[in-house]
Amino acid sequence: MSKLLKHIHSPKELRLLNQKDLRQLAQELRNFIINIVATKEGHLGASLGVVELTIALHYVFNTPEDQLIWDVGHQAYGHKILTGRKEIFDTNRQIGGISGFPKRDESVFDAFGVGHASTSISAALGMAIASKLKGDLYKQHIAVIGDASIAGGMAFEGLNHAGVTDANLLVILNDNAIGIDPSVGALKQYLTNVKKGIHRKNNIIEALNIDYSGPIDGHDIDKIISELKRLKTVKGPKFLHVITTKGKGLKQAEENQVTYHAPGKFDASTGDIILKSKSEFTKYQDVFGHTIVELAKQNKNIVGITPAMPTGSSLKYMMDDMPDRAFDVGIAEQHAVTLAAGMATQGLIPFCNIYSTFLQRAYDQIIHDVALQKLPVIFCLDRAGLVGEDGATHHGVFDLSFLRCIPNLIIFAPRNEMELRNMMYTAQLGLDLPIAIRYPRGTGVTVDWEQPFTNIEIGKGIQLKEGNKVAILSIGTIAKNVTQAIANYKQPENIAHYDMRFVKPLDEALLHTIFKTFETIITVEDNSIKGGFGSAVLEFAFENHYKNNIKLLGIPDVFIEHGSVTELQKSIGLDVESLSTFFSGLI
Amino acid sequence: MSKLLKHIHSPKELRLLNQKDLRQLAQELRNFIINIVATKEGHLGASLGVVELTIALHYVFNTPEDQLIWDVGHQAYGHKILTGRKEIFDTNRQIGGISGFPKRDESVFDAFGVGHASTSISAALGMAIASKLKGDLYKQHIAVIGDASIAGGMAFEGLNHAGVTDANLLVILNDNAIGIDPSVGALKQYLTNVKKGIHRKNNIIEALNIDYSGPIDGHDIDKIISELKRLKTVKGPKFLHVITTKGKGLKQAEENQVTYHAPGKFDASTGDIILKSKSEFTKYQDVFGHTIVELAKQNKNIVGITPAMPTGSSLKYMMDDMPDRAFDVGIAEQHAVTLAAGMATQGLIPFCNIYSTFLQRAYDQIIHDVALQKLPVIFCLDRAGLVGEDGATHHGVFDLSFLRCIPNLIIFAPRNEMELRNMMYTAQLGLDLPIAIRYPRGTGVTVDWEQPFTNIEIGKGIQLKEGNKVAILSIGTIAKNVTQAIANYKQPENIAHYDMRFVKPLDEALLHTIFKTFETIITVEDNSIKGGFGSAVLEFAFENHYKNNIKLLGIPDVFIEHGSVTELQKSIGLDVESLSTFFSGLI
Repeated sequence: MSKLLKHIHSPKELRLLNQKDLRQLAQELRNFIINIVATKEGHLGASLGVVELTIALHYVFNTPEDQLIWDVGHQAYGHKILTGRKEIFDTNRQIGGISGFPKRDESVFDAFGVGHASTSISAALGMAIASKLKGDLYKQHIAVIGDASIAGGMAFEGLNHAGVTDANLLVILNDNAIGIDPSVGALKQYLTNVKKGIHRKNNIIEALNIDYSGPIDGHDIDKIISELKRLKTVKGPKFLHVITTKGKGLKQAEENQVTYHAPGKFDASTGDIILKSKSEFTKYQDVFGHTIVELAKQNKNIVGITPAMPTGSSLKYMMDDMPDRAFDVGIAEQHAVTLAAGMATQGLIPFCNIYSTFLQRAYDQIIHDVALQKLPVIFCLDRAGLVGEDGATHHGVFDLSFLRCIPNLIIFAPRNEMELRNMMYTAQLGLDLPIAIRYPRGTGVTVDWEQPFTNIEIGKGIQLKEGNKVAILSIGTIAKNVTQAIANYKQPENIAHYDMRFVKPLDEALLHTIFKTFETIITVEDNSIKGGFGSAVLEFAFENHYKNNIKLLGIPDVFIEHGSVTELQKSIGLDVESLSTFFSGLI
Repeated sequence: MSKLLKHIHSPKELRLLNQKDLRQLAQELRNFIINIVATKEGHLGASLGVVELTIALHYVFNTPEDQLIWDVGHQAYGHKILTGRKEIFDTNRQIGGISGFPKRDESVFDAFGVGHASTSISAALGMAIASKLKGDLYKQHIAVIGDASIAGGMAFEGLNHAGVTDANLLVILNDNAIGIDPSVGALKQYLTNVKKGIHRKNNIIEALNIDYSGPIDGHDIDKIISELKRLKTVKGPKFLHVITTKGKGLKQAEENQVTYHAPGKFDASTGDIILKSKSEFTKYQDVFGHTIVELAKQNKNIVGITPAMPTGSSLKYMMDDMPDRAFDVGIAEQHAVTLAAGMATQGLIPFCNIYSTFLQRAYDQIIHDVALQKLPVIFCLDRAGLVGEDGATHHGVFDLSFLRCIPNLIIFAPRNEMELRNMMYTAQLGLDLPIAIRYPRGTGVTVDWEQPFTNIEIGKGIQLKEGNKVAILSIGTIAKNVTQAIANYKQPENIAHYDMRFVKPLDEALLHTIFKTFETIITVEDNSIKGGFGSAVLEFAFENHYKNNIKLLGIPDVFIEHGSVTELQKSIGLDVESLSTFFSGLI
């Protein structure tokens, strides 16, 4: 079956093949990816789309001396398999296994870590300039970037700089008209017109003083190879426009590109998705998605914004239902936030839904455009806390720390679906300040979550359980682990549990009661303990001269790798069992 | 003299003038700006360049119903004077006076606060979409953006979205080929070619599906008015390319555009700058600028990067001395950081100099591209702490909080010039982690600062003064105020003073000594007390079960407005006198 691929342990062996055999290799590589991802799960469509490109790049260029950066590592499965990780590819995204993204620690062929989009041009340009400075005139530096990612502002910044250098940079645009969801924006329309031949050549790129070639068929391996060979001899910054089909080679993946971006388990031969046993619980994403539609029907000022995550965030429901009022702005977090600010100045009520890890891209905009002006934008921070298999690049474990120092910002974390819904309801009634509502990836805890809306008083925490010796203060959905851990503990009557709900403003009245009642106080959060919720409680304690024993539980000061959320929680003592054990040690 | 301007208290009165009188008004407005800025200081060149454009915009459009956003408020002095703030314009940038930037709190004519660059298109588009949704089909939304600012990635994100909307957005490119320093990058070269007629029209803008017109002479008020009137009738997103001269109307300002961006006091009639009595001390910026040149001569791997601040950061010295190794990448902080990361992978030693407030733009890149990969980029965070007259948009008072939660990052704040130099020296010897070195705007404290380099041990603080009752722990240059306050205090022998130097890693050995020796501990920083240096000390204290009294002094949880640094310090209790008073209350 795999007569060629089985002999390839590095690109050196690939480069010994006859070019005529590469189509066969492509078929084998594609099957290999399909077979593994079918059972082990992962990102499918992007890597299938670049099988020929991946082979051609390693065939023509002298990797790893020539440096290859895959913008957003979703594309890089073929690359990993051809560069020595074929035998362990079935550990992809599992704890202790290989990362789903290129990672410098993992292989010398992974020139740069890439989990967030639009970084590759800057990184490759840095490498290319370094090579020039070191007098290495022949080394090549290649960034492969999708059309969704190249629309991110950072990519434009990189191109704008590249065009005034003589660095040996090759930018390959992998144009498949889709990121995770279909690409949007004027640039995408333009690229489509270039493909159709309406524009003779890519003026935008040439205007930036970069040698443009293409578009070429990204599944014609001979054509790609001959073009790459030609470009290898062209000095300075170059741009190759390659047209591919996401999911290429698996009919269903080609036809349902959004679903097959990361389809979960599927039948490798038919492509049919193997349905998981349906959880009795709803994803927080869908709670958000259904609730914003429900609220928007009642309040005509509500609008929704997502930077390129309509499906992931479930803003899709609103986009389908009221397309004029829900906006996918593409991979453009900075723009998303300031667009929301602009809308808020006019009395609209923008729900700006951004993954916690991607909000890092719009940090200045939250401070400068939203909080400083007290504009009541409602940030819904999806995928806060540990996200699981996506790993270190994607965990949303810094938001409480980086948001907490921003004046005027309310920070809330719902414990369950009703709290998320009720805070969305409360916020759209009209706050005079912006609010960040953070919630995790995955399912909730309540079957019957669609209950009538009630108002949440800003800055008020609640007691979840009485107790007489120790107080646990949790924030957000990690409360679930705390509740179970208390239940498992032999003397649950000793432990009181509070959901503080608001990291800012803190419920100081409740904290005074707690500090006066309990000698020992434990804070629990799925955010960094550096500067996070626990740190806020410490600041309160010192400000008020309390001398209680306080212990902070949360994410330690290291980057957490990939694995299931439960496994990762266990590794840092935040799973139910570890918490139970910890409670036992206290009393 | 000012026969027209004196009658104009709002654009309504301006719109009553005959168009033929507007050139006269432009002359008066220009003189007014020159006369005030000559004595009160401020940003001169940008506003002189848009005098005609400012008048034309308010003449043609129905401000404030039509909404006008000035990208980076440097341009907006004329706007402020014409919109009711003429009489108080002499309070510009002074404490309690008007802001140097447009500010929503200050006037209904300031549609959006703008201190950081490249935000205007997103904000105006948000407003324009809001107007559409509200059924207001005639309201106009105008973003005036310079060619340096439009190169920022966020502006591209805004244009990319605008091109697929039918919103009534007018983007006016104020093309003068300069930001604070001359514009750089491929887009700038392209715009220059458009101006010269080498390109017939602006393909980049048209490619993004935006109606392009121009370029037109931005000092020909009749031409601008007729073009604006025409554009007012064009539906959907529009782009007008206007050519201006920064500093227009003051010969010296036109000829020395960098110097006259904000020239300090000058003779209004001749334009000659009135030299300040030269400080005996050197600016920290020049300490950085001279030191990097000195080090780079010895270490060929050193490179320097600035996003558009070569003069402000003094990286200019290196750019002049070794142009191949010092890079001004334009207003592109995200790119600057990841470019540095790419360079670091190749063994270069990048000094990436970014103002603290602008590093907020590259927060994700520090986490995802630098710290996660442990790349030893050396961040020099200029203008950390309170910056003075630029005010709320520009204070660098969040960096310790937002950086402290990032794993693998060393955070250092020099107390004086030698500490800055020695840490630059130490860092380039080869750290295996990235480091952030934060230092303030303005002059140092040491005449004879060019002393031989010595190594600084990472994570080691020092005792500056012995004492027997209270320990003050300061970080960075605020040590100066502490030292003076102790000296002014009646019993200085009671107070010990430590410079902790590192916010991360903390000098835990020294902290143990301090916590065991002193009952009362005061931390002092010019960063937010939420999550900052003091918060780190609290975390240490609790982790180690210390029950000392601790008090955190720093920036309170509000946005600090503009004024001199000393005035602002006084307003929040960080000036010498307040600190002395505070110490008196302790013992």
